[in-house]
Amino acid sequence: MNRTLILNHRHIVQTVQRAGLHQFMSELIDRLENAFASYSSNKFDVPIRDGFRYDRPVPGLIEWMPLHDKGQAVFMKAVGYHPSNPIMECLPTVMSSYQLFDPRTGRLVAIADGNLLTAMRTGAASAVATKHLAARRSVSLGLVGCGAQAVTQFHAISRIADIDQVRVFDIDHRNARSLKHRLVPFNERGTRIRQTSLDELLEHSDVICTATSVEVGKGPVIDHQLLMPDVHLNAVGSDLPGKIELPVGLLKNSLVFPDHREQACIEGECQQLSEDEIGPTLPELVASPDFYHGARNQRTVFDSTGFALEDFVALQLLTDHATEFGYGEHVEIDGSVADPFNPYENIHSASESNHYKVITYPL
Amino acid sequence: MNRTLILNHRHIVQTVQRAGLHQFMSELIDRLENAFASYSSNKFDVPIRDGFRYDRPVPGLIEWMPLHDKGQAVFMKAVGYHPSNPIMECLPTVMSSYQLFDPRTGRLVAIADGNLLTAMRTGAASAVATKHLAARRSVSLGLVGCGAQAVTQFHAISRIADIDQVRVFDIDHRNARSLKHRLVPFNERGTRIRQTSLDELLEHSDVICTATSVEVGKGPVIDHQLLMPDVHLNAVGSDLPGKIELPVGLLKNSLVFPDHREQACIEGECQQLSEDEIGPTLPELVASPDFYHGARNQRTVFDSTGFALEDFVALQLLTDHATEFGYGEHVEIDGSVADPFNPYENIHSASESNHYKVITYPL
Repeated sequence: MNRTLILNHRHIVQTVQRAGLHQFMSELIDRLENAFASYSSNKFDVPIRDGFRYDRPVPGLIEWMPLHDKGQAVFMKAVGYHPSNPIMECLPTVMSSYQLFDPRTGRLVAIADGNLLTAMRTGAASAVATKHLAARRSVSLGLVGCGAQAVTQFHAISRIADIDQVRVFDIDHRNARSLKHRLVPFNERGTRIRQTSLDELLEHSDVICTATSVEVGKGPVIDHQLLMPDVHLNAVGSDLPGKIELPVGLLKNSLVFPDHREQACIEGECQQLSEDEIGPTLPELVASPDFYHGARNQRTVFDSTGFALEDFVALQLLTDHATEFGYGEHVEIDGSVADPFNPYENIHSASESNHYKVITYPL
Repeated sequence: MNRTLILNHRHIVQTVQRAGLHQFMSELIDRLENAFASYSSNKFDVPIRDGFRYDRPVPGLIEWMPLHDKGQAVFMKAVGYHPSNPIMECLPTVMSSYQLFDPRTGRLVAIADGNLLTAMRTGAASAVATKHLAARRSVSLGLVGCGAQAVTQFHAISRIADIDQVRVFDIDHRNARSLKHRLVPFNERGTRIRQTSLDELLEHSDVICTATSVEVGKGPVIDHQLLMPDVHLNAVGSDLPGKIELPVGLLKNSLVFPDHREQACIEGECQQLSEDEIGPTLPELVASPDFYHGARNQRTVFDSTGFALEDFVALQLLTDHATEFGYGEHVEIDGSVADPFNPYENIHSASESNHYKVITYPL
């Protein structure tokens, strides 16, 4: 019997819980760093994502993010971005699902909910960038935009740096206020979390994460006059043409590391730059950290558009733990086949009588 | 609770069985014809499919076929083509799955096995083309290539034409022999089915369907000297660059109707033609049948690469009947959410103690 593994939200929560949330995030950061270090087009093919962008029934987009781990696996993420979800539907802005295919047969072998993993891998990618680009190990963190992604930005960066305090800002004060409470459970060290003005945040943060739903054409969301000279920024929110969070003046005076160069030029902060103004990619940085060592003392930007390698690594980590713990469900989607040349093998004739039986002739 | 509808192979077989196989195929042909007639880029966006093609672990490809029914639905088919499947894995050459997303939220609302539906919609598309392009209503049918697709080519065309006899040919005689038996259960009228030489088939068939796994660079699979002057061909097999079934001399002396022009120019028979040698698309033909009426008396080719509109129509028909009959399963994939801004809302702190409880603050 062919079965497809389903890892639903409940299985994923159970798995992460049992592995330990901090432990799971730390492993994700490690695996992501290793995957970046060994990332090459000989081993992986990760095309830029594509999708449908629309204004009705609500403004939003649904995109597909495929990945080919050559000889090993084909992975596909389907992701939606619908800023009206939280208020209108009590659903996350970013919703996604993961699928894994066997390249030997084309069978769909696994489906996983992508909501938690996407938030975690987005945080983990910022953590890898911050680890390689922040000027200090002890940092003041600034979070601009206090939605779901801010939670995992804080969590992931707390795994690789000592955060001495966190300043949070959102144009919606309710989000800024509730973020403080959402961070409490993962803040055993009691790091001070304060809702501040945007100016104070920009002036005093060593590391800043922007994760906003700013509309196309309405960015940037910060000014750069007040920033520290060696600040590191993780720009997480840009994910469609015209959506930007950082001012072009900042980008032109910073080293800008995109996650996926071609994609970042279409929908990341790199939209605002010419080819020669864009630094190496984060995988290139991680592969040759000594070469880019001096970057720590400069203004640096991680242009995080999010790419399927991160999701693929997250799914592998999840699957490893879920398998170990016995979580997940195996459901039937495709059927077993006696004669692969007979699509009708299990169907009787359409004549309402049952006179006709399908006779199958296996090879 | 958010649930995702799963329609697995068993549900689909049950649904088609209960609707009646002939009835289901006839409805599929009707709906496809209607969808073609009203197809427009105002209503639909169907990009050409893209995918990964590889030689290891086996020669094959996995592709994604997205569709946007504007304002209504986003659909994605993932399809694999692995010619080694039947012999090596006892699986169909073409395996696929369908996914449906809600464009209001991005949620994955349905997953369906695509194997049977793909075979049926491929047959149904040939039936629509044959209905509009065959010279006669009573036809001698020739099937070149006797795999899974040949079954549904016969079945679908038998719904729209009187088939007085069927000639079948395959370079693997076992396939040709077994095809006769696979067709019997759907051949209540007792149409004569004979395994013949390729020449005899070409010379005497009014309608010919080619559905082969010919390798890239090894086509064409037929010669055109013997063909009737008003023969209609459904070229079903071409689905990747370099794979062709028909000789260029035949194409240049025929009216060629692709299903999806851009896609057919990349991976269909239209690869062999220049822009001005390609006729209108099948949807354009169906939308204006009077305008192309004279085509019946000429040699015509339906260049069937297969496109997502056909799958979308098949999934809608299936879902309508499955809902009516109460077939299908609702599984949990994504989770219900109390606070859409807190991805960790159901996870306790990673500290091994349970001192920390997540406090969620709904909006």
